[in-house]
Amino acid sequence: MIEGHIYKLFDEELRELKEKILFEGSLVEKAVRNAIKALQTRDSELARRVIEDDDLINKKEVEIEEFCIKLLALRQPAAKDLRFITTAVKINYDLERMGDMAVNVCERVLDLNLEPQLKPYIDLPEVAEIAQTMVKESLEAFVREDVQLAWKVTNEDEKVDHRTEQIFRELLTYMSEDLKTISRATRLLFIAKYLERLADHAVSIAELVIFLVEGKIIRHRKYSEKI
Amino acid sequence: MIEGHIYKLFDEELRELKEKILFEGSLVEKAVRNAIKALQTRDSELARRVIEDDDLINKKEVEIEEFCIKLLALRQPAAKDLRFITTAVKINYDLERMGDMAVNVCERVLDLNLEPQLKPYIDLPEVAEIAQTMVKESLEAFVREDVQLAWKVTNEDEKVDHRTEQIFRELLTYMSEDLKTISRATRLLFIAKYLERLADHAVSIAELVIFLVEGKIIRHRKYSEKI
Repeated sequence: MIEGHIYKLFDEELRELKEKILFEGSLVEKAVRNAIKALQTRDSELARRVIEDDDLINKKEVEIEEFCIKLLALRQPAAKDLRFITTAVKINYDLERMGDMAVNVCERVLDLNLEPQLKPYIDLPEVAEIAQTMVKESLEAFVREDVQLAWKVTNEDEKVDHRTEQIFRELLTYMSEDLKTISRATRLLFIAKYLERLADHAVSIAELVIFLVEGKIIRHRKYSEKI
Repeated sequence: MIEGHIYKLFDEELRELKEKILFEGSLVEKAVRNAIKALQTRDSELARRVIEDDDLINKKEVEIEEFCIKLLALRQPAAKDLRFITTAVKINYDLERMGDMAVNVCERVLDLNLEPQLKPYIDLPEVAEIAQTMVKESLEAFVREDVQLAWKVTNEDEKVDHRTEQIFRELLTYMSEDLKTISRATRLLFIAKYLERLADHAVSIAELVIFLVEGKIIRHRKYSEKI
């Protein structure tokens, strides 16, 4: 009876862990969404707010890490749950860095806003949209242990690579046609790179989920982004 | 007596874990060294070998992860050791990605080798050298729990950022003086970016060490790489 109670408690704690991860993920998504909004609307104020708010994500990361350590120490979970918690530790580590990507985008936005807009931004927000969906779905795949959804995320990555490749080519054309555009184009190119890295993190999370559920190692290797 | 024996065994296992991490780190260092050598000597064969050998790092990562899970399951370590092991889990995760950076450099090298060399490579190998030292020292800081060395690594990062900034500026000059250089310059620029990310991973590891030993959260945030 007491044992049953402890199991129930542990199940609740695992659910709490999942909720915490999802909440951290929602902060990251919001940061990315606002970073792209700041780019599109040339809103330096918003960009600065995203940079400041990154502290919330950092604090959340520490909180989740502590929670995982508490679970490991107090519940001494068996094989399957143990793996789930170490996976959460790594996903948590990923999420914190994904927040950094939003910060990096905003730093470039602040630079870009000091000069006239190079071009209308159509492709970058689209890439950001795909990357955000990947982030969301990779975390859903984790909390539901949904391998099919995880595979979907890994497959989406090709789309991101293809789109960023197009962006690179377009930016290279701008640069070669007008030298004055080089510095702005390079900044946009870095923003594309940050979004690609964001998608990479989502793929890493999806791979962790596949490994967690199926014990299958898949290593994402990118022969992508051929310029 | 028996308890003493178990503690001794656990100490040995922790030492084994440290050795495994150091070995994985040495594979990463070798991969980076060869990637840069492949760039300097335009050796596509070597570049392809680095890409192939990344599998070894991936296998090592899985082995270390399994070892950590075994330690958590069988030894049910207390607070301090628990934190050490979850830190190892994250460092292991970092190292695997650092191997990917070497692979990414080599992919760009293969592209670059299809065209004449743009310029003599002096700065990039220097940045790589600094980044490699950071990788080595961050892992040493971890196994020795040496906070001072960890702080040294976090401080080195500014040097890397400064150097890559110089590289960017120089490459932008090439681009603006001769449009035919744009695609090669962009590839070199990405290589600089990969090295910077490698250094970022080393800083992340150093920060984990500081957190492990002092319980102090420092969050590396980069307002760097202003182009």
